[in-house]
Amino acid sequence: MSERETSVIGGLFTEIDHVAIAVADLDAAVAWYEEVFGARVTHRELIERDGVEEALLAVADSYIQLITPTRDDSTVAKFLAQRGEGLHHVGYRVDDCAKALQAAQDAGVRSIDAAPRPGSRGTTVAFLHPKSAYGTLIELVQE
Amino acid sequence: MSERETSVIGGLFTEIDHVAIAVADLDAAVAWYEEVFGARVTHRELIERDGVEEALLAVADSYIQLITPTRDDSTVAKFLAQRGEGLHHVGYRVDDCAKALQAAQDAGVRSIDAAPRPGSRGTTVAFLHPKSAYGTLIELVQE
Repeated sequence: MSERETSVIGGLFTEIDHVAIAVADLDAAVAWYEEVFGARVTHRELIERDGVEEALLAVADSYIQLITPTRDDSTVAKFLAQRGEGLHHVGYRVDDCAKALQAAQDAGVRSIDAAPRPGSRGTTVAFLHPKSAYGTLIELVQE
Repeated sequence: MSERETSVIGGLFTEIDHVAIAVADLDAAVAWYEEVFGARVTHRELIERDGVEEALLAVADSYIQLITPTRDDSTVAKFLAQRGEGLHHVGYRVDDCAKALQAAQDAGVRSIDAAPRPGSRGTTVAFLHPKSAYGTLIELVQE
């Protein structure tokens, strides 16, 4: 059995959906990934609810998600002020966000979202709290 | 043309090889990913040169790479002391590490490794400096 099959059959995560990177200047960061690595933006979206603008650069079946705050009260603005630019969270793709969130909650993991909610590009998402996940902000992403 | 084709044809990154997460207790973190998400360890290795032990959990064709320091002078020990557990770096798979590193250097990106070097599991790798990469420690990984 290949690793891919093992993962899909045995686990809730079917793919690394994205690595999210907080940046101060979205256009500059996008241009850097394009120029240095030949990456390509496949989606860009303003997420009013979260006070965030994102650009997705495709890498195989995953994305580099560059995010920047659009308001001072955005959690990403606070992150930039406290920690500076860099890795912000990781999104794992799941078949069923509600089921994955429930499994995490049943295992005693603290979630930021009590129930799945709309994410960008039509996804359904839920965030797990980093204090309950070895310091990593984890997003469960259902396409 | 699908996003996957675009990425492979147009860019240096062919896959998100891994997201690396620094943890204080490797066994505990592995058990947590296994129990909560049904993830599976497919490789474990002590990398003497870097003072790091790693466990790889397969997610499709990528990995969650849990890393813990084995020495106080390990850069991962310093990271844990300064920032605590959490996202440490992201590894992008490339066809040719030397070529990708050269392209980055030609574009003015500062690298930590002047030339490709052996990584874990028989890979060839090179790290780019986060100060030159919007705060993200980037590893180029050739399998």
